Amino acid sequence: MTPVLVVLNSGSSSLKFQVLEAGREPACLFKGLFEGFPVNARLTIKDPTGAVVEEARWGGGVKFGHENALMHLVSWLRAHQEGRVLRAIGHRVVHGGEAYGGPVLVDDDVLRELDKLSPLAPLHQPHNLEPIRIVRRRLPDMPQVACFDTAFHRTQPEIATMFALPRDIRERGVRRFGFHGLSYEYIASGLRALHPRLADGKVIVAHLGNGASLCALKAGVSVATTMGFSALDGLPMGTRCGAIDPGAIFYMLREMKLKPEEAERILYNKSGLLGVSGLSNDMRTLRASAAGNAQARCAIDLFVYRIVREAGSLISALGGLDGFVFTGGIGENDPATRAETTAGMSWIGMRLDEAANRAGRPLISSGDGPTILVMPTNEESIIAQQTLSALQTAT
Amino acid sequence: MTPVLVVLNSGSSSLKFQVLEAGREPACLFKGLFEGFPVNARLTIKDPTGAVVEEARWGGGVKFGHENALMHLVSWLRAHQEGRVLRAIGHRVVHGGEAYGGPVLVDDDVLRELDKLSPLAPLHQPHNLEPIRIVRRRLPDMPQVACFDTAFHRTQPEIATMFALPRDIRERGVRRFGFHGLSYEYIASGLRALHPRLADGKVIVAHLGNGASLCALKAGVSVATTMGFSALDGLPMGTRCGAIDPGAIFYMLREMKLKPEEAERILYNKSGLLGVSGLSNDMRTLRASAAGNAQARCAIDLFVYRIVREAGSLISALGGLDGFVFTGGIGENDPATRAETTAGMSWIGMRLDEAANRAGRPLISSGDGPTILVMPTNEESIIAQQTLSALQTAT
Repeated sequence: MTPVLVVLNSGSSSLKFQVLEAGREPACLFKGLFEGFPVNARLTIKDPTGAVVEEARWGGGVKFGHENALMHLVSWLRAHQEGRVLRAIGHRVVHGGEAYGGPVLVDDDVLRELDKLSPLAPLHQPHNLEPIRIVRRRLPDMPQVACFDTAFHRTQPEIATMFALPRDIRERGVRRFGFHGLSYEYIASGLRALHPRLADGKVIVAHLGNGASLCALKAGVSVATTMGFSALDGLPMGTRCGAIDPGAIFYMLREMKLKPEEAERILYNKSGLLGVSGLSNDMRTLRASAAGNAQARCAIDLFVYRIVREAGSLISALGGLDGFVFTGGIGENDPATRAETTAGMSWIGMRLDEAANRAGRPLISSGDGPTILVMPTNEESIIAQQTLSALQTAT
Repeated sequence: MTPVLVVLNSGSSSLKFQVLEAGREPACLFKGLFEGFPVNARLTIKDPTGAVVEEARWGGGVKFGHENALMHLVSWLRAHQEGRVLRAIGHRVVHGGEAYGGPVLVDDDVLRELDKLSPLAPLHQPHNLEPIRIVRRRLPDMPQVACFDTAFHRTQPEIATMFALPRDIRERGVRRFGFHGLSYEYIASGLRALHPRLADGKVIVAHLGNGASLCALKAGVSVATTMGFSALDGLPMGTRCGAIDPGAIFYMLREMKLKPEEAERILYNKSGLLGVSGLSNDMRTLRASAAGNAQARCAIDLFVYRIVREAGSLISALGGLDGFVFTGGIGENDPATRAETTAGMSWIGMRLDEAANRAGRPLISSGDGPTILVMPTNEESIIAQQTLSALQTAT
C-alpha cells in the first residue's frame, strides 16, 4: 500500500485539498475544491495535468458543509484509490501564535491552544480548525498536523515584531506575526536548492496573490515582513486595505457611524484592488480594463507603488538587496506587475530582461544589480513535507 | 511704530506664543508659554537669549483659560512694548484639509471650513481654532492668518496620498495628509539658501520631536511623508503609537473590550516611547536610563529601527538619496539617535563624521555618500512669514 497525504485549506464556504504521495518531495496526485457551502455545494477534482477527474453538485436545498465534504473525500479516496492508503491529514492553519514555531501533531490540548488564537484571525482561524475538529470526531485515529502561516516568521528579531504599544497590550499578543509563511518557506527552500549563493544573501520575496505580502530573507531566514498582527496590514490586496492610519478607523467609527464589525468588513472585503477600482479584485480583469478605465489603472498603480515603498522599507531591514523573487498568482503570471515593480526599484540597481519577463522565464534580471526571479510557490507541498516531518518527530 | 506679529500654537491646556518683528526674515523678540489651564495657570516670557522677562501665576481656584491668556498677552504687549504695534496674529492650525494649500486670512467662512476639519484631527484642531474665535470676538479688526501643518504636503502625487479604500470612504476625506509641514517648509527653504545643489536633489528630512515624522523632498517639494490621515501614523512618537495594524484596533475593541475613545486615548497618550519604556516620553530621560533599563533601551531601539525602515520606504519614493536632515528636539539635540540612525542607513552609503556629530556641527557626514545635516527647525518663523505673505496677498 502506498501511503498518501491529504492537505486541506479550509475557508468559510469552501474546502481546498490536495492528495499527495507521501515521499520526500511529495508529488501531487489530485487537487480539488469543494465550494458553495452550504446550499449550493459543488466539487471538482483534477489530476496534475489539470484534467477534471470528478465533478459533483449538491443542489436542490440539500445542506452540504465541511463535514459532508470531508466524508465524501475520504469515501472517494477509498473507492478510487486502490493500493493507496491515507496516512495523515495536513492542515493549513493561519495562526500559530507565539507558541508554535513549526508544524504540530494535533491533539485535544493543541486544538484548545489553537482555538484561543481565533480572536487574532477571526476571519480565518475558526474555519481552518473546523475540519480538524470534524476529523477528530469522525476518524479519531487519523493523524492530523497543523502547519502555520505565521511559523516561518518566528526567526525575526523582536524589534521587527513590535508595535509601540504599552506593555500590557503587547503582552496580550498584539504584535506583528506575519503571514504567508508556508509560501515563503517553499521559496526559501527552493532558493537554497537552485541558487545557493543567492540563498545566503539578502532577498525580498513578493508573494503577490489575492492576499499579498513581502518578506525579507537574510540567509534564508525571515527578518521582516509587511503583514503584521492580522491579515490586513502591509500591501493592498484583492479586497483588503493593507496599511492604513489607525486614525482612519476611529474616523469611520465616530464620523461615519460604522460599527466595528462593519468597518472591519469593509477593510477585509470591500477595499484593496476591488475598493479602489470599483471593478474587480482580480488583477487580470484590471489589466484588461486599465487602458480605458482610470480607476482600474489607479488600483494597479497603487498596488505597485505600495510594493515599491514597502520593498524600500525591507531593504533597510536587510541592509541591502541581492535578489528579488516574484511569486503568487500575480507574481507568477503578470509580467506587467513585475515590469512596473522593477521600474520602481531601479534606484537599487534592479534591471529587467524584458524578453525573459514576457516569456515568463525564471530569471528575468539583466545587468549586475539584484537577481530577479519568478518562482512558482507551492504551499501544499510544504504542508505535506511538514506533515511528514511532524509524524516522524512524533514516532 | 514698528509692526510686530504674534504667532500662536494653542493646545488643550496651554498657549505657546512668539512675538516677532514683522520683517522679511522675522526676528523673534519674545517667546512665551501659558500652561496649566484652567485652574493652575502660569506664564513665562523669555527674550531670545532665554532670559526670563516675565512670570505670572493664577492659582487659588481662579479659572484662567485661552481667553484670559490672549487678553493678558495683548495688554502686556501694550504696556511693555512702546513703539511696537501688533499688526496681525498667525496661528498654527494642524489641518487645512484638501482646500488649503497655503496660509489663509481667516474670516467667518474660513473659520466654518476649518471647523469642519475638526473630526480629522479631534485632539488638535478644536484647540487650534479656539484662539481664532476668541480674537474675532474680542479684537474684531485684528487680521488673523491660519497656517497649516498639512499644506506643505499638497504637492504630493495622488498615489502617495491614497489608502486602498472604497471610493465613497476616500471621498469622505480619508487619505494621507501628512503633518509637520511648517517645519519641513522651514527646512526646505533653509536648504535652498545654504545648500542649493542638495536642495535640488533627493532629501529625507527627519523631524524628530515629541511628534515625529519623515518627509521625502524632491527638489524641495514633498513627495511622500510617514504621517497619514491623523497624527498617529508613521513613526512611534513620545506617546503616540505610529503605524499599527488595523486588525490590532479591532482586537482592542472586541477582545479587550475597550471603547473606541479609550483605545484612541491609549494610542495617542500612552503609547510610543512612553508605552514601550513604561518610563518616559522624553528621549533625554530614556538615554540617561538606557544602560540599566532594558525597556528604555528597547523604546530607543524601536524608535530608531522604525526611522530606518520608514527611511527605506521614502528612498523608494524618491528613487535614491542625496541628503538626510535631522531636525526637531531629538534630531537637533541627541547625537546618539543621529549616530544609530546613520548606522542603520549605512547600506545607502550614509557615513557619520563622529566628531562633528558629537560636537553638534551642522554637517555631520563623511565620505561621498549622502550629505547628513543637522538643521534647527523654526515653525514660528515660517508662520510669521506666511502670515505676512497672506496679508500682502489680501491687500
